[in-house]
Amino acid sequence: MAQTADLIVAGAGLLPAAGADVLENHGVAVRDDVIVAVAPVDELGRRFPQARVLDTPAGLVMPGLVNMHTHVSMSCYRGLADDLPLMRWLEDYIFPAEAKLTPEVVNLGAKLSILEMIRSGTTSFCDMYLFSGEVAKAAAECGMRAWVGEVLYDFPSPCYGPPEKGIELVRAMAEEWRDHPLISVTVEPHAVYTCSPDLLCALKELARELDSPWIIHLSENREEVETSQERYGASPASHLDRLGLLDGRTIAAHCVMLSDDEIAMFAERGVSVVHCPESNMKLASGIAPVARMLAAGVNVALGTDGSASNNDLDMFGEMTSAALLQKVAGLDPTLLPAADVLGMATTAAARALGMEGRLGVLAEGALADIIVVDTNAPHLTPMYSAVSHLVYAARGGDVIHSVIGGRVVMENRGITVVDEGEVTAAMRAAARDIEALFR
Amino acid sequence: MAQTADLIVAGAGLLPAAGADVLENHGVAVRDDVIVAVAPVDELGRRFPQARVLDTPAGLVMPGLVNMHTHVSMSCYRGLADDLPLMRWLEDYIFPAEAKLTPEVVNLGAKLSILEMIRSGTTSFCDMYLFSGEVAKAAAECGMRAWVGEVLYDFPSPCYGPPEKGIELVRAMAEEWRDHPLISVTVEPHAVYTCSPDLLCALKELARELDSPWIIHLSENREEVETSQERYGASPASHLDRLGLLDGRTIAAHCVMLSDDEIAMFAERGVSVVHCPESNMKLASGIAPVARMLAAGVNVALGTDGSASNNDLDMFGEMTSAALLQKVAGLDPTLLPAADVLGMATTAAARALGMEGRLGVLAEGALADIIVVDTNAPHLTPMYSAVSHLVYAARGGDVIHSVIGGRVVMENRGITVVDEGEVTAAMRAAARDIEALFR
Repeated sequence: MAQTADLIVAGAGLLPAAGADVLENHGVAVRDDVIVAVAPVDELGRRFPQARVLDTPAGLVMPGLVNMHTHVSMSCYRGLADDLPLMRWLEDYIFPAEAKLTPEVVNLGAKLSILEMIRSGTTSFCDMYLFSGEVAKAAAECGMRAWVGEVLYDFPSPCYGPPEKGIELVRAMAEEWRDHPLISVTVEPHAVYTCSPDLLCALKELARELDSPWIIHLSENREEVETSQERYGASPASHLDRLGLLDGRTIAAHCVMLSDDEIAMFAERGVSVVHCPESNMKLASGIAPVARMLAAGVNVALGTDGSASNNDLDMFGEMTSAALLQKVAGLDPTLLPAADVLGMATTAAARALGMEGRLGVLAEGALADIIVVDTNAPHLTPMYSAVSHLVYAARGGDVIHSVIGGRVVMENRGITVVDEGEVTAAMRAAARDIEALFR
Repeated sequence: MAQTADLIVAGAGLLPAAGADVLENHGVAVRDDVIVAVAPVDELGRRFPQARVLDTPAGLVMPGLVNMHTHVSMSCYRGLADDLPLMRWLEDYIFPAEAKLTPEVVNLGAKLSILEMIRSGTTSFCDMYLFSGEVAKAAAECGMRAWVGEVLYDFPSPCYGPPEKGIELVRAMAEEWRDHPLISVTVEPHAVYTCSPDLLCALKELARELDSPWIIHLSENREEVETSQERYGASPASHLDRLGLLDGRTIAAHCVMLSDDEIAMFAERGVSVVHCPESNMKLASGIAPVARMLAAGVNVALGTDGSASNNDLDMFGEMTSAALLQKVAGLDPTLLPAADVLGMATTAAARALGMEGRLGVLAEGALADIIVVDTNAPHLTPMYSAVSHLVYAARGGDVIHSVIGGRVVMENRGITVVDEGEVTAAMRAAARDIEALFR
């Protein structure tokens, strides 16, 4: 049966998935928002003569990266305060600033981060923040794929008010975005130390009702573990397990302080972890035992965390940091080889989100989230191994084109979806108000 | 007295040195290869009406970065082998490849790396390698400032033959490049485990004769320390101290395994250290005690090491890694604040090289090594602190112009000094021969 395609994305090489071989002179054909073929370029040309062709002679075509843990709107606080003790940073800067947060700034910060992510090869992200409806709107407007969650806790929220309204909000958001091709609404309790056991369990119920992942910050630093031990007589992970909250839909961000027993438990329950190495380093939280998690069979994805604690959202840089940090922490250069790290940024994210085979790979039937890396630059020359370069030498700035859900959102480094200058100018203006809070 | 200038480099802001405040709407005026004024843009325009003006509305003008330890020609092995145990990487890949090394490939690899460095904001570097005369030639041809040293050891060299010829070679190189405005020849014993005490002492004599820094790999990993203990009954640093080789002209690269006593000794002797965090991480060498060195008053500069073990030469990324690694290693987010890290990449390098006030700063009388960072990008927006962005968010690709010794070597991301496409194409051809060695 004859098939049609709207777009062919082709290059000198195509990497269908982390761990696969590079296919020379291959491309992907896309119809609507789905990949309909991965094949040699000339074959695609014959099969789909009507399709628009985006061909890059020195390009490496590959799956877009998935940033599995971030707070995109916090770009408005990027570099506002650094190099401070954690509680001073939070209590003197981030919390007072967030108390004045408006939906407009959340929207603007999200747009700014989405532009940064498109420019650096990320084609979908998983977010937790206040006024998350604005994050969803920003992502939809920018043509970015997103899993969006309102941050939920025991205290009144500047967004939804009293805690019980949080569940209503999430339910309403899930309804609002149900049929959107790019946006999924998730259920996101903030952490064990900010959510009562009742709230955690109620939110798990909600996640089941909505068939959504249940996403939480977990065991990010020593203080969190100590607080949980004092309050519940159990580590954060054990506390969740006793409540019956660990399963294949649970996604735990950070997991810096996980013990070997907890790692084994996560593997058994099918819990996914999101590693955020640069934020963990910058905030001096510690080094997550990623190599041991992977060895135990835990699914570990990768995220940048917010740009207030990173301070960028470049998943290429995050891949480098993930690999290098495990090697030096374990004093073993063989830990976290490049293909495994690329898997964390692609296929592991898909597995965590219940999107295996549809996200993080270039294959027939997968969503058309595709990036092209320009391999012409001196720092990517020569190229003995594409995967080595992607993890150890490439940066977000090497991404030349980006396609999300079949739509070309960046072409030759030009953003096609919104006016970038308007967004950056508006953020500069908003930042003057934020800065004035601390004068 | 009226003065002339050839070039004015101006932007929205100018950072004269790490730790200084940003001066708004300032620029630098350059005559020949020296800065003759740092002043408000309109004042420079009045004083030097004949000068060419390179003005960047959203640009941050700052000192070029100094990569204080690298092996530029090793770009020919970038990504050839990764994620291997150190001795397998060296013995199965690097040593066999280096045994076949030609002066032509050294020259080509140096040029490729120099282009990468110019593109990422480095305006001078300190190198150690075989056939280092070719590195000097490549740097001179590309208009790059370089401190170049032939690697010296007890064994026959593919470059100069028997060890005694090494001293002759360095002396001849020093003579050849004596009056070159960009190239300095240095004396560089490879390491304590590859150089006899006699050779180390003879090379210190040579360095004194040539008034050159004496540069060595030191205490890079546990194995090196153990070898030195077995052979000399002393750590590498103590061994050098017993030989009287530690002084203000000594530059020690890596120093991962330095004890507190050795740190105090380095501070007392005025030894400079070059920290190479990404290489130390990737090779799993360990974490250098940089925060403790700085606290003790040791001068610590920053380097990338070669791109075979990094795998890039981006000093912006290296600054990020340096800051983040110390914070997480010390579990203290206040360690290595941004301004200190920027100092490592600029003024500390100048101090190590005996170039204080002439290198790593924008000031009257300093060498005109200047870069301009484009701050318009989403990942550098908003900007509460320029120094925070330079260390935590910027990447080499954000550098838009580069001036070395008064010559514009990159303008609007276009290299002006050599044909970049010729260099990358030649390296791709050379890499096919290298790859064939391992088939």
